[in-house]
Amino acid sequence: MLISEFSRRSGVSIPTIKYYVRQGLLEPGRAMTAKRFEYGERHMRRLRLVRALIGVRGLSVRAARDVVETVFQHRGDIHEMLGLVLGAHRETAAVESAGAAEPAAPAAGDQEAAAEVTALLERMGWRVGENSPAREALAHALSTLRSLGAEADWRTLMPYAELAQRTAALDLDGLRGVDDPLERAERAVLLTLMLEPALLALRRLAQEGESARRHSAARESEPARQHAA
Amino acid sequence: MLISEFSRRSGVSIPTIKYYVRQGLLEPGRAMTAKRFEYGERHMRRLRLVRALIGVRGLSVRAARDVVETVFQHRGDIHEMLGLVLGAHRETAAVESAGAAEPAAPAAGDQEAAAEVTALLERMGWRVGENSPAREALAHALSTLRSLGAEADWRTLMPYAELAQRTAALDLDGLRGVDDPLERAERAVLLTLMLEPALLALRRLAQEGESARRHSAARESEPARQHAA
Repeated sequence: MLISEFSRRSGVSIPTIKYYVRQGLLEPGRAMTAKRFEYGERHMRRLRLVRALIGVRGLSVRAARDVVETVFQHRGDIHEMLGLVLGAHRETAAVESAGAAEPAAPAAGDQEAAAEVTALLERMGWRVGENSPAREALAHALSTLRSLGAEADWRTLMPYAELAQRTAALDLDGLRGVDDPLERAERAVLLTLMLEPALLALRRLAQEGESARRHSAARESEPARQHAA
Repeated sequence: MLISEFSRRSGVSIPTIKYYVRQGLLEPGRAMTAKRFEYGERHMRRLRLVRALIGVRGLSVRAARDVVETVFQHRGDIHEMLGLVLGAHRETAAVESAGAAEPAAPAAGDQEAAAEVTALLERMGWRVGENSPAREALAHALSTLRSLGAEADWRTLMPYAELAQRTAALDLDGLRGVDDPLERAERAVLLTLMLEPALLALRRLAQEGESARRHSAARESEPARQHAA
């Protein structure tokens, strides 16, 4: 299809499409003549992913390009691919915090917390690369919780880790039976980065629901508030 | 303590402290003379929370002020307070996405997805306010996953919702037995906003661990790769 149809079908304006091509987020269309370019289904899939990474995950153009290149160039096995996607997100995290009012500086307790993270990983039996950005992220989150006065060590995180283990099993089940490497790569991004906002929203809904349940249970135990059914 | 000691003990520079006071993130110190102000333990706690919200959660100064004001002014019951914190984060979400390259626009499938979210809430028995920002966030995440070709409806989210229910129960257990209203309010922020980066990091670590486990299990079933123990 020509760029006009590509724009209409995708809902993305022609200038934005051209901007993404210049920034390396999209491959250029196949040149038909000097001024006419042909876009195909592969461009459409890539554009949808780009829009989702930027619009929903709030990634910068540079971070989105890193993720998309990882996904579209990779043809290896799923374990290696997941590592690349989770690793590409290190860039992402750096770019994101640069956009904040103040970048997150390593806190004094980070090193101590890193040892706690290692203890947690051992206890859970998770083999995780030394350079995995999620290690650092967890250590930083842990030392921050502590600096705010929360009692948080690897033991308090264990119940959460066990639940995380189950969601990870669900995630990887979702990759089974997908043979096409491109489709598997796209789905890995869905299950890592794109599912995160949904899970955070679910957790907040669950908190509100659980809070309402406990609140009303407390109220019903006050006799003065009880009504005849 | 005077501002010099406040700065030394908190590790935050005097100009930054003064900036936070001007922006309404911190209450001014108690005036001793026209130029000397006294800061206390309450200022220290508030400053720690501000640094965490801005540094770790990447909130803007404005969004951090909304959260901090909610927490420090509230004296009511925990259910109402949680609602206020989760609601204050609506501001936050808007501010955050304004910082992205392109703000997230409501997608075409959001309305349909909103009905799915309602179905999920009913099935889970979660009573959640009509205006809860997490409803919208979940609907948007769901319609995005679909637009990317994922099979995602309320049924596919159910196992995740059940795990979210358990984490919410853990979260609210963490608020039991805390009688001081200020401490309870601070802890509610910890358990909602501040725990989120830790949980996302745990999930990524769990994915990497689960992927490594499945990967090595697959390798061990290839006879040529087996070594004598």
